[in-house]
Amino acid sequence: MIKLVLLRHGESLWNKENKFTGWTDVDLSEKGVAEAHEAGKALKDAGFTFDLAHTSVLKRAIRTLWITLDEMDLMWIPVRRSWRLNERHYGALQGLDKAETAEKYGDEQVFVWRRSYTTPPPPLEADDPRFPGHDRRYAGVPDNELPATECLADTVKRFLPLWEEEIVPELKAGRRVLIAAHGNSLRALVKHLDGISDDEIPQVNIPTGIPLIYELDDDLKPIRHYYLADEARVKAAIEGVKKQGAAKK
Amino acid sequence: MIKLVLLRHGESLWNKENKFTGWTDVDLSEKGVAEAHEAGKALKDAGFTFDLAHTSVLKRAIRTLWITLDEMDLMWIPVRRSWRLNERHYGALQGLDKAETAEKYGDEQVFVWRRSYTTPPPPLEADDPRFPGHDRRYAGVPDNELPATECLADTVKRFLPLWEEEIVPELKAGRRVLIAAHGNSLRALVKHLDGISDDEIPQVNIPTGIPLIYELDDDLKPIRHYYLADEARVKAAIEGVKKQGAAKK
Repeated sequence: MIKLVLLRHGESLWNKENKFTGWTDVDLSEKGVAEAHEAGKALKDAGFTFDLAHTSVLKRAIRTLWITLDEMDLMWIPVRRSWRLNERHYGALQGLDKAETAEKYGDEQVFVWRRSYTTPPPPLEADDPRFPGHDRRYAGVPDNELPATECLADTVKRFLPLWEEEIVPELKAGRRVLIAAHGNSLRALVKHLDGISDDEIPQVNIPTGIPLIYELDDDLKPIRHYYLADEARVKAAIEGVKKQGAAKK
Repeated sequence: MIKLVLLRHGESLWNKENKFTGWTDVDLSEKGVAEAHEAGKALKDAGFTFDLAHTSVLKRAIRTLWITLDEMDLMWIPVRRSWRLNERHYGALQGLDKAETAEKYGDEQVFVWRRSYTTPPPPLEADDPRFPGHDRRYAGVPDNELPATECLADTVKRFLPLWEEEIVPELKAGRRVLIAAHGNSLRALVKHLDGISDDEIPQVNIPTGIPLIYELDDDLKPIRHYYLADEARVKAAIEGVKKQGAAKK
């Protein structure tokens, strides 16, 4: 049986400030750091170990991975960073306050931007300082693949080449893989793994900082998945994620 | 002009306890952590940046690198870990107290083991728990390359393939490379770069936690090198390294 472990980074400074983050390289909050330590300890206590890890090029995911590897005494394993594991690009909403955006456009429009599978937020202009073409970490990404905004379908599309070309061969070779990433890049993976429909995926929520374990057969079809935490904690974490983006009452 | 930056990890818990470390995976001391922060700040303040980094599979070098990248806001750059950048393997001396070993065998014998180019310390037996064949991080290393002890000539020999096959092509392609490693793996590199003779290399000391900058021509011949710290600090750090291993008076 093949085991694959997914870990969504803990709270970031902008989660806390209730801002749309996307590709903005915001660090973890103190709470997010604590969540990462807890995830690492839970994995270690449950007897997990890894041969390699994948993460994004954003520090909130990388730091989550570093802390987890440190807790597990696995700082030595290979780590591969890819923009294909980045959070969904939030276009021109990046940096805006979620509650103010919801007040201005209405909860429904914000819910559509946050969760519609095919409707992206308004795009960034190429001369906007937030456009990823101005950041040298994306210098190797072909111009026509560099997003100015993304709906989840776009995130799925740019994530899948990493999955097919790197992660699938590693899993099939028996490597134990940890993926430390973001709410939407992990939803892209979960949608693909579990064959979740475009209509259903907006309702799927992955809590932060709790390892999500997938047990897969030899063809990488899921046998089952579960969170490495008690049910109450998982439920509370999912409710916390759902509430983000609603206007503050 | 090509710039290459070398960084020897700061004080480890066993430097502090005055034990032979070698491939033992000992963490940084608090002072070592502080040295790494200082190195990262110095590199940032001097305007350095990097496209990728190399390190060993030992946490004192990896943590030094992590802290440096964090200080420089470069957590996103690719990091390659290799056993070829590990500290020199100290054989059966690993874990022994340096001063006690010096008292028992004499300063001269210990100096030979520490600094002779061709005389390795006594080897580990394959059934010794310290033998690297028992550690899964070395599972990919061919049996005949796995050391039971090393003299510096051995360290040079196992380091050079990484240099020739990976780092040289990166430097020639214009990539800005940081190497965070150990006293002896960095001495192996410096010996190679500067063409230092087997007789002279025992007297070369690289201080901990101070970035060592090499400026190279297109054929990777050194134009000059310098430490990124004031002269007094470099001198004090070199004296500190020299003193290690002498019997305590």
